[in-house]
Amino acid sequence: MVRPGGRSARVQESVHAAVRQLQAELGRDALTVPLVAARAGVTPSTVYRRWGDLQELMSDVAVEHLRPEAPPADLGTLRADLGVWAEQFLDEMASPPGRAYIRDALLGDPDGSNAGLCSAYAAEQIDVVLARASERGEAVPGTEQVIDHVVAPIMYRILFRPGRLDAAYARELVEHALAIRRPPPAEQS
Amino acid sequence: MVRPGGRSARVQESVHAAVRQLQAELGRDALTVPLVAARAGVTPSTVYRRWGDLQELMSDVAVEHLRPEAPPADLGTLRADLGVWAEQFLDEMASPPGRAYIRDALLGDPDGSNAGLCSAYAAEQIDVVLARASERGEAVPGTEQVIDHVVAPIMYRILFRPGRLDAAYARELVEHALAIRRPPPAEQS
Repeated sequence: MVRPGGRSARVQESVHAAVRQLQAELGRDALTVPLVAARAGVTPSTVYRRWGDLQELMSDVAVEHLRPEAPPADLGTLRADLGVWAEQFLDEMASPPGRAYIRDALLGDPDGSNAGLCSAYAAEQIDVVLARASERGEAVPGTEQVIDHVVAPIMYRILFRPGRLDAAYARELVEHALAIRRPPPAEQS
Repeated sequence: MVRPGGRSARVQESVHAAVRQLQAELGRDALTVPLVAARAGVTPSTVYRRWGDLQELMSDVAVEHLRPEAPPADLGTLRADLGVWAEQFLDEMASPPGRAYIRDALLGDPDGSNAGLCSAYAAEQIDVVLARASERGEAVPGTEQVIDHVVAPIMYRILFRPGRLDAAYARELVEHALAIRRPPPAEQS
């Protein structure tokens, strides 16, 4: 869907703002498309035409919340930068609002584009950390390797497997991702 | 929720069977609780009382489909057993029906118990592979390490990050999980 500036961008902004306000005032379960449209000053059919249904609108709003607000901290080493980033990522995603946004982002997202955006946000942050380390002359793993071995386990445990989701776990995943920087040649299987 | 044998088990079996039949005949989007109830020979209120709504019923049915049907193959080495298991797991989960079941399992699962079951099924299969390797005298990683570095990346890419989901990727993840069997001591960060 094309979302250019002008009227279209203003509609999106006011509808998103209406969702955020009504969610804070009434709670998520009380939201309906007519309620959101009335608060945003648009017709319900504008909302249906653009978002399909409430679940798809909630997915778009959730993704906005999941967008990182600042570049990752620069602490001088790859291990420290990746460790702190992973701790914060885990903290935000595993928090009750983080879990609700992840769920909303997935549920109203039949084509996977919002889920893909969430993943792209994490990859961009990791890219910044890796590029900085590379400029310092450090050996760095690939972005996809950090996604596979740091981001994926955190998200998997949030969605599928209750268990330890603490700072030590985030650090351990970073150690693992750095340890497999150069996997040994495969033995005969 | 307790689901003992007797009438309760028969109701569950006939409702699940009705979902599977109607899904095959009419497609998933045509399903409604009254339709499923009529086919199962129960009242709609029986379905609502037991499952809450259609989404929760679909989640239970999806989890049934995601239950492994056989123990993992025994090929004589940890690397081979884990590699073949990971390839099959990826194949099943990334297939169009696998993706639909994962989605259904997550969506109608407000308390996470069905998602937990999916994860427990994978962990049980991995336990079998690791116990067999251990009996052979092979050094083995922990089950949670295989979950983190083989299962989690596959599920994360299915849900969030389109990309290569082929047999070589599954094998590579197994190599990584085996390579970090003994992570090096953490350097100062």
